[in-house]
Amino acid sequence: MNTKSTKHKPVVTTPSEREIRIERIFDAPRERVWKAMTDATLLAQWWGRGNKLEIERYEPKRGGHWRMVEHTPEGPQGFEGRFREVTPPERVVQTFEWDGMPGHVVIETMTLEDLGDGRTKLVNVSLFHTPEERDGMLHSGMADGVEQSYAALDEVLHKLAS
Amino acid sequence: MNTKSTKHKPVVTTPSEREIRIERIFDAPRERVWKAMTDATLLAQWWGRGNKLEIERYEPKRGGHWRMVEHTPEGPQGFEGRFREVTPPERVVQTFEWDGMPGHVVIETMTLEDLGDGRTKLVNVSLFHTPEERDGMLHSGMADGVEQSYAALDEVLHKLAS
Repeated sequence: MNTKSTKHKPVVTTPSEREIRIERIFDAPRERVWKAMTDATLLAQWWGRGNKLEIERYEPKRGGHWRMVEHTPEGPQGFEGRFREVTPPERVVQTFEWDGMPGHVVIETMTLEDLGDGRTKLVNVSLFHTPEERDGMLHSGMADGVEQSYAALDEVLHKLAS
Repeated sequence: MNTKSTKHKPVVTTPSEREIRIERIFDAPRERVWKAMTDATLLAQWWGRGNKLEIERYEPKRGGHWRMVEHTPEGPQGFEGRFREVTPPERVVQTFEWDGMPGHVVIETMTLEDLGDGRTKLVNVSLFHTPEERDGMLHSGMADGVEQSYAALDEVLHKLAS
């Protein structure tokens, strides 16, 4: 498992001064990755990177809202947003906001590409209102958090396969 | 009344390709304008420009949410957002989103300046994620809507004075 997580490190780039782009390969077919990313019960198993995740609201459709509370050792952290587009099994566009910085909204565009060999390429582009907000996210340890989340997602995908 | 509304037309400008700035003078002291803009009962009397306004949620403090439904002749229109900053009696920063375009979020920074002669200058700057979203708002008849809302606000301020 560890070998796999290391092999598929997320690649983080900054295509523009207000964007962060993350690319990551998963050793699972696209339908399975889609399911693990949009089914609330499965989402709760990896998004919190081992921390308990409470899903207060999860309506994956255009106009639907979502809200989750991650119970970290430092206390609860709330996150929420709204779906702009949900196109199975390939594309989700949603807003993302952390309770610690209310009203600072990121637009996340997530696409899943079927690589044709049983693997899936995920690309997530985050668009911020300002370069400062983008930089704040970059310096928040976000890359480590994403790497941990996706390693946990690897495990969920592995379990779903068996 | 009409004379007053005409005299104080909102001035709409575009300081950058992602912003809309609106400036409007009110013939009322700042504390009174603040009250009419942040008290839910008063807000319901002018925001809908004569249409019934249902305030589902209104928590004017950092991190608080708001949601209002305007009952127009064409049907209900939902609007919502979250407060980033509420500093009485001079500044509110909040997000703004229309149900018709879910996940398209505008940051609104509203400031009230005491002109020292019993009048108040309101400045509202809206920051969009993209120039296209800004242009969409400009071409939506927004300026007329704002003018009607602020004319209705004039009436509320006049009533509060007596």
